[in-house]
Amino acid sequence: MSHDWLLEPCVAIDEESRECALLHQAQLTKPPGSLGTLEALAVRLAGLQHDPLPSLQQVWISVFAADHGVAAEGVSVFPQVVTGEMVRNFARGGAAISVLAGALGATLEVVNLGTVNDPGELSHVRRAIIAPQTHNFCERAAMGAGQLALALRAGADSVGLARASGAQLFIGGEMGIANTTSAAALACALLGESPSALAGAGTGLDAHGIRHKAEVIERALALYSDDGDALTWLQRVGGFEIAALCGAYIAAAQQGLPVLVDGFITTAAALAAVRIQPACRDWMFFAHRSRERGHARLLAALAADPLLDLGLRLGEGSGAATAVPLLRLACELHARMATFAQAGVSGA
Amino acid sequence: MSHDWLLEPCVAIDEESRECALLHQAQLTKPPGSLGTLEALAVRLAGLQHDPLPSLQQVWISVFAADHGVAAEGVSVFPQVVTGEMVRNFARGGAAISVLAGALGATLEVVNLGTVNDPGELSHVRRAIIAPQTHNFCERAAMGAGQLALALRAGADSVGLARASGAQLFIGGEMGIANTTSAAALACALLGESPSALAGAGTGLDAHGIRHKAEVIERALALYSDDGDALTWLQRVGGFEIAALCGAYIAAAQQGLPVLVDGFITTAAALAAVRIQPACRDWMFFAHRSRERGHARLLAALAADPLLDLGLRLGEGSGAATAVPLLRLACELHARMATFAQAGVSGA
Repeated sequence: MSHDWLLEPCVAIDEESRECALLHQAQLTKPPGSLGTLEALAVRLAGLQHDPLPSLQQVWISVFAADHGVAAEGVSVFPQVVTGEMVRNFARGGAAISVLAGALGATLEVVNLGTVNDPGELSHVRRAIIAPQTHNFCERAAMGAGQLALALRAGADSVGLARASGAQLFIGGEMGIANTTSAAALACALLGESPSALAGAGTGLDAHGIRHKAEVIERALALYSDDGDALTWLQRVGGFEIAALCGAYIAAAQQGLPVLVDGFITTAAALAAVRIQPACRDWMFFAHRSRERGHARLLAALAADPLLDLGLRLGEGSGAATAVPLLRLACELHARMATFAQAGVSGA
Repeated sequence: MSHDWLLEPCVAIDEESRECALLHQAQLTKPPGSLGTLEALAVRLAGLQHDPLPSLQQVWISVFAADHGVAAEGVSVFPQVVTGEMVRNFARGGAAISVLAGALGATLEVVNLGTVNDPGELSHVRRAIIAPQTHNFCERAAMGAGQLALALRAGADSVGLARASGAQLFIGGEMGIANTTSAAALACALLGESPSALAGAGTGLDAHGIRHKAEVIERALALYSDDGDALTWLQRVGGFEIAALCGAYIAAAQQGLPVLVDGFITTAAALAAVRIQPACRDWMFFAHRSRERGHARLLAALAADPLLDLGLRLGEGSGAATAVPLLRLACELHARMATFAQAGVSGA
């Protein structure tokens, strides 16, 4: 299976719709610029949706779940069995992302890429099993080339389903015990940072646990002496869900579907995606600044200025879902406010 | 008319509901604390609503409009006629707050406290006219004692209407050409800050305009040599809508209705309210950090950590309305997520 599709071009931004939206904003009954980021969101979406009056009714959320061999190194406070248990919880509506998707009227798809504790067939769960888990990346590459290709493709498949359903925004979420270790390792490799700078508490490590986690990453990185490109590092230290997110972000840009990036793990996947296919950056919105150490550094590397800063660190796409109303309200204001002329309001 | 009602006690927080909500949060299927501020919002609302499972379906928005004599000093880039024009725009649904209220399913009430350009009777506009405008506070006190009492009462009346309608959250907004000058003057007086530190661009002043605005405030403050309490300063440099907001915030706490404070002007009113009746602080949520210079200083004085930082500076209650979905999602997550036991998910 080839990675060639990753390099296919992304859809271009429609500058005419963007300009049109910008002119429209200037006519609305408010001091110019006074709606700040809400104005900028509407104008950006206009360019991406090729529509001067963008809208965001249809939101698609894919949560990618997978287990990690590196969990054997004791890098999480939760047991590995939780990944499969949470897949069932997603499907039954009890997880944070399930509740948020319901509240937003969004479509929630769960993609099982391989869990040690297999929850089996469940409604709303797409099985795209690659293996029960990745290899322990302290000992060898996390996955084989074929596995990486499958994972990237699984993400693109979700985008295809989203597009076909009429989605106007794609959110990727993740679940996988030990996946902040994988994401931190990937971030270290791509940014040339030290593990002690990017390893964080994950689901709740104490200072001792975080030091151990950094040492685990240190050991993994020491297996390799070359630089390696983003795909190489995804294969070496990534997870199936992280690779799927990377594939999804690239496919979304190729299919003209804006994405809202969630927290630390998804931002690591987004960085890999931008390294592979730089043009996909244009299609990314960033939802929030997570409390997970390392997220700020990843956001900076992507020149991303996220919408929220609420101390979230759950994952699942929950931070991105929480930011959806801001994008929707930005569209509503843009589309429904009266102009100075319509309202008979005097200008400055 | 007496101010005595301002000192009547506020409703106490229900510590039992708050504790109960806190225990419930710890059982939900997520790492403890991983929903950050969203957890804290639900727990705080539980204590305020006297309900371990709070909800925020019914939101009430009152926009208080009034004109300012100090507009004669040339402190705004917009002409004074705009206040009345915007009252009509609010009523007809074309203003930002109208669009936001519609999108949120919130009730929008506009209260006309006195505009030089009187839009007359309009549906959804409550007329509580005090005078066409305040006096120019560079020359004399902005209002008489009776006018101040009427304005404070008008705010409390809105809270009474909100409460009677079943509202679970009160948002106060404001409209009034030159009212950032009034709010900055009030803030300077209450905080002992210099006008150059707190006077900002308002609807769009340039650096020269901001310097002039600071000088105008300087002149007003120089009329008085005593300290004065918050009520005294409201009368001297406030506006009818700022006094109404102050009265509303105090009345809301006395009636057990949480409030979501908007931007610079409403936060100045909130500071005055807390100086008059300190217990009302418990009932305040702060929606956003405005781009208006001086807002950060006001927030700090109230130990407020707002939810959003989106460069907004429109007023009307628009920033508060934009933050409503965050509070609603916090309630949804709190009420609908499964516990570890319910979902059969293993703990840490």
